[in-house]
Amino acid sequence: MDIKEGTEMTRLESARKGIITEEMTEVALAEGVTPEYIRDRIADGTVIITRNTQRTDLKPLAVGKGLRTKVNANIGSSEDVLDPAEELVKLRAAIDAGADAVMDLSTGGDINAIRRAILAEATIPLGTVPIYQAAHDSGLKGKSFVELTADDIFAVIEEQAKEGVDFVTVHCGVTRRSVERIKIEGRVMGIVSRGGALTAEWMEFNKKENPLFEEYDRLIEIAKKYDMSLSLGDGLRPGSLADATDKGQIEELIILGELTKRAVDKGVQVMVEGPGHMPMDQIEANMLLQKRLCNGAPFYVLGPLVTDIAPGYDHITSAIGGAIAAKSGADFLCYVTPSEHLRLPTAEDVTEGVIASRIAAHAADLVNGVPGAMEMDLKMSRARKALDWNTQIELSINPERARALRESSAPGDSDVCTMCGSLCAIKITNEAAI
Amino acid sequence: MDIKEGTEMTRLESARKGIITEEMTEVALAEGVTPEYIRDRIADGTVIITRNTQRTDLKPLAVGKGLRTKVNANIGSSEDVLDPAEELVKLRAAIDAGADAVMDLSTGGDINAIRRAILAEATIPLGTVPIYQAAHDSGLKGKSFVELTADDIFAVIEEQAKEGVDFVTVHCGVTRRSVERIKIEGRVMGIVSRGGALTAEWMEFNKKENPLFEEYDRLIEIAKKYDMSLSLGDGLRPGSLADATDKGQIEELIILGELTKRAVDKGVQVMVEGPGHMPMDQIEANMLLQKRLCNGAPFYVLGPLVTDIAPGYDHITSAIGGAIAAKSGADFLCYVTPSEHLRLPTAEDVTEGVIASRIAAHAADLVNGVPGAMEMDLKMSRARKALDWNTQIELSINPERARALRESSAPGDSDVCTMCGSLCAIKITNEAAI
Repeated sequence: MDIKEGTEMTRLESARKGIITEEMTEVALAEGVTPEYIRDRIADGTVIITRNTQRTDLKPLAVGKGLRTKVNANIGSSEDVLDPAEELVKLRAAIDAGADAVMDLSTGGDINAIRRAILAEATIPLGTVPIYQAAHDSGLKGKSFVELTADDIFAVIEEQAKEGVDFVTVHCGVTRRSVERIKIEGRVMGIVSRGGALTAEWMEFNKKENPLFEEYDRLIEIAKKYDMSLSLGDGLRPGSLADATDKGQIEELIILGELTKRAVDKGVQVMVEGPGHMPMDQIEANMLLQKRLCNGAPFYVLGPLVTDIAPGYDHITSAIGGAIAAKSGADFLCYVTPSEHLRLPTAEDVTEGVIASRIAAHAADLVNGVPGAMEMDLKMSRARKALDWNTQIELSINPERARALRESSAPGDSDVCTMCGSLCAIKITNEAAI
Repeated sequence: MDIKEGTEMTRLESARKGIITEEMTEVALAEGVTPEYIRDRIADGTVIITRNTQRTDLKPLAVGKGLRTKVNANIGSSEDVLDPAEELVKLRAAIDAGADAVMDLSTGGDINAIRRAILAEATIPLGTVPIYQAAHDSGLKGKSFVELTADDIFAVIEEQAKEGVDFVTVHCGVTRRSVERIKIEGRVMGIVSRGGALTAEWMEFNKKENPLFEEYDRLIEIAKKYDMSLSLGDGLRPGSLADATDKGQIEELIILGELTKRAVDKGVQVMVEGPGHMPMDQIEANMLLQKRLCNGAPFYVLGPLVTDIAPGYDHITSAIGGAIAAKSGADFLCYVTPSEHLRLPTAEDVTEGVIASRIAAHAADLVNGVPGAMEMDLKMSRARKALDWNTQIELSINPERARALRESSAPGDSDVCTMCGSLCAIKITNEAAI
């Protein structure tokens, strides 16, 4: 990799000057929009292209207004499950299932080595949460996370940026004021974000403001140097339906909106992260709020999970919430796997999670008029009407699964399937020319 | 079973006279509403209790306005997969997973025997589509379905009613006019309902009107005799997003609305069946239309599936659509399994389908203020905050699955799970008293 530190304009600065870069042309083609559209949306902060300048070999990914809804898969080790090889298996599972990005959330084992291995192999953008590494490193030095200095934390972020991480989650909105509002509220679940909890713990112990908030300009400078995107984390996202859209969550969102503007003004691309656990009827309002408070910055949501009672099936609760969110303005869905709330996901969970989120994203895209989305469904319907099984399988969101199910149950008449046999409505009406 | 033909008022007639029956009291208790509420909603046709008078041992099930959204599981054999024992396995899977009703849609093997075996064992209401048996029987007699007379069809319906079937799907809205409107429209997928296709084929061949429409009063009489509910089938439901909310679909719905009134006026309970494949942004309007055109009769929807491209995952596309539908007025969700469009479902598919639909139903119930719904989520959140794993598993929508996932990945510290280990946000914040 070539090191090109601060020698060029960021893509946001280029866009603002009216320049269409090669990257913008490339993503425009992939999205079915004009390069001018991409340029203008980058300039106003409603679209980002995420690719670290160190990763010249990576295909750039655009996220935001009017574009196909993207899907992220979280992978990474934990203290209890820390085989580096398994993380590469999960990476491949995510890519094979059609994820647009991955985040390495490793917290166990040699997490530097895991991240570097993923970076070397990932053909899609990579995001991280640098304070996980900071927390882990502090443990290695026999220190607690709360004993780290602001410099320690920024050093880790800079190191990861330099290595080529494309976007970083930074919990800058967890401040004295927003945490205070959580306490006044008396939440059922309190803080459920790991980064949010670590940050709040650090602040409580040190009796200081969050350094990522207080020294936010340092973060902007690091991001700018590598044209790395900032993903402003929702450390105070609700972890229970009962806590959704409460004052602490909205206080944090207001802060993130203010920080979005500061970064965008300085030429750094930003997306904003969102909830979380949320009743269906609050999702649309939350999407509108984020767009209004954050000047239309891309919204990257985790879920939302529309009920708390379905551990083992949170890819489904998340697909319901994600579809409604994407229809109402969310641009980027972070998947949730069937293992959420129960264990670290396996590679099989990764596949299930990515597919469920892609279904949600696509269901929204086709009603939002995203170029090419509805045409996919039309092609599938035509293949069904023609009883053309090969084409149906090819057009399926996961052809391998569709093929396996069909092949597991062979019909006597290969025109139909074993659900209906000769009572197949398509076959009856085709033959009767109705 | 005692035969009590026509000796008593139907429950709709009782309700209209102001009488609260034992059944009404029983379902009111199960639903957390007053017996008066149930009586008044039955009287105005917005709630039904489904239980054939022949099934005195069956717990009655209420479906409709203001009540918990119910879930139906379709089981039954096909020409290619016709082991009767397997259908009883599926029945048990449906009941174990929490289905509120099952429909036996058998079309292969000895379907009379299968239905009778299911009826003998089902502790939840059973629905059927009698013309499947008529079609099957005609084949045994060496005849085509189109050669059956109206009398043949009514005889099958009466036979099933007498045996104790609790509700029957009857495709009365597939008429010359509605089928003509499908043709004028030029649908992508045409007719995708088996019952709809058979009926249209019969009409085309015989150059006659649909007997279930033309002699609808005969149907009312049969239903009345056994207080069996009529489920007015949507034989013209869209089978492609491209066909959703078209003129043929709405013509059929108008007809079903008129037929609903005729049955309700004569003391027979009715629910109306609905789509189908449908883009997310059309679901709410469709729910409103049904309620308006059918005088608020309970709406029983199949899906809706919010994209056509996900065979292998249609329990998820259906959970998205079903949640939005239930939030907007649907009362009863017919599950869709992962095998839809590919093969006859297995018992495992039945479990997955029921759970996905129950998630959708519950996500809607909690925002619709259904008594007790939100409390379930609140209890789960409190168990999570307390790191009380046994309670979390007990409160899960499928405790067996939740337990299996947790036990498959044992954490070093039993307070947490292997996702976060010592970085568990709950543990950190509980210990730091944040």
